[in-house]
Amino acid sequence: MADSRTDSRLGIVAGNGRLPRRLVEACRQAGRDVFVLALEGAADPATIADVAHAWCPIGAAARGLRLLRENDVKDLVLAGGVRRPSLVSLRPDWRAAKFFARVGYRALGDDGLLTAVVAELEREGFRVLGPDQVLGSDLAPEGPFGKIRPDAQAAVDIAYGERVARSLGALDIGQAVVVQQGLVLGVEAIEGTDELIRRCAGLRREGAGGVLVKVQKPGQEQRADRPTIGPQTVVLAAAAGLRGIAVEAGATIVLDRGEVAAAADSAGLFVIGIGGR
Amino acid sequence: MADSRTDSRLGIVAGNGRLPRRLVEACRQAGRDVFVLALEGAADPATIADVAHAWCPIGAAARGLRLLRENDVKDLVLAGGVRRPSLVSLRPDWRAAKFFARVGYRALGDDGLLTAVVAELEREGFRVLGPDQVLGSDLAPEGPFGKIRPDAQAAVDIAYGERVARSLGALDIGQAVVVQQGLVLGVEAIEGTDELIRRCAGLRREGAGGVLVKVQKPGQEQRADRPTIGPQTVVLAAAAGLRGIAVEAGATIVLDRGEVAAAADSAGLFVIGIGGR
Repeated sequence: MADSRTDSRLGIVAGNGRLPRRLVEACRQAGRDVFVLALEGAADPATIADVAHAWCPIGAAARGLRLLRENDVKDLVLAGGVRRPSLVSLRPDWRAAKFFARVGYRALGDDGLLTAVVAELEREGFRVLGPDQVLGSDLAPEGPFGKIRPDAQAAVDIAYGERVARSLGALDIGQAVVVQQGLVLGVEAIEGTDELIRRCAGLRREGAGGVLVKVQKPGQEQRADRPTIGPQTVVLAAAAGLRGIAVEAGATIVLDRGEVAAAADSAGLFVIGIGGR
Repeated sequence: MADSRTDSRLGIVAGNGRLPRRLVEACRQAGRDVFVLALEGAADPATIADVAHAWCPIGAAARGLRLLRENDVKDLVLAGGVRRPSLVSLRPDWRAAKFFARVGYRALGDDGLLTAVVAELEREGFRVLGPDQVLGSDLAPEGPFGKIRPDAQAAVDIAYGERVARSLGALDIGQAVVVQQGLVLGVEAIEGTDELIRRCAGLRREGAGGVLVKVQKPGQEQRADRPTIGPQTVVLAAAAGLRGIAVEAGATIVLDRGEVAAAADSAGLFVIGIGGR
């Protein structure tokens, strides 16, 4: 019954955060063999505990490709963020330099770069899957996750935040924005969502708190860099005085949805899936 | 020769930064009388030293209007930033509440609000001038201010930053962006340009440093909230590892242009006026 390819060994190219480890665990539960290519300076050591793995610098493309082939990987998933380096600090090997020479580096936003990386991996003969294809049902559904729902003010902030976030996404700058009472407290660029939330704590105004709105970029490569939230996002949002989190339904990976809902309920925040398509 | 109105007493509604004091000094040199309405929590006490003035909370519109009239003000200039408060912390009096009831508060971005404030002051019979009309020639010219010019990489970053900043401006979010080697390190929202520069210090990548690009919003109320830079901007940019600053020519107020050029030269930065219209 099972497609033989889905039973083959899964390669996980692991950046930061909890998503890569979640993939490892999902594969274990499904009895699927994995090999983790852990990106140096990005992947959490916890990701590769008790798993076949190798560490590899981000710019060492030739070594990375060789490691994946030697470990019999055909299906591949890219998971977790990478603090995007400058071309200098990337220290590209000949294979990476060849790739950048063809696609350009400086002209590419994050999403453009990831799309090019996915295309390059497929050209090398790998099949690239989205993390959600491996995890199954972990994309955000529409509606509230926990017991709390946005009130009228929060709904207005969410609608405005969604409009702003989509415009930022169209520029390939970031996925997230924080809005409080109609004021845009902060927009995400390269610092990432966690840092955005942290700095908005200091920008908070009196009265009803702000909301974090996170959506995918238009045309975003679905198999890499999907918007992702988890329990840690809720904890940070609560600490920053936010009232809630709105994420794009059908597009956002939610790590530990039960834990997210429980954390939201206990902190008095809402977490809601919006604008599903 | 002089228009009698230009000789009348000038009212300066003073927010933060050095611009309000510069206006006071420019009037002194021109022998023009001033009255400063210093906004509590925003204006620098140095602004009102040895000048006719009164302090006024931001939400106390009725008191502010009365003070301006009692002090025989007909021409008015709004200068310096105000950390925009939530409606709750604004504590609007009846006059401010009437204004907000008419124009709405939450639906307005920064520029929309300032445009409405200017219109309201004119409805009250004041003539509202732009700071540049009082200062004369302090708008940024096109081209480099000091001895250093952007190289090819910096020129690419400036062009990209200008495109991003104009898109942000169209959303009425902010005026400034920091780009390094094609990466958007940060975009300005409510935190202001100084804070944007400070946090980009921690996001800096290896290699050639980034550039700050600052432009006016499309449709920006020219008499309030013009993009402004001064020597302090150069000092912050240097401390954050930036290579230079590009501002919109013909639209940006430059405080102490000579000092700006000298600070840029001594720090090894460029400051340049771009895209003049």
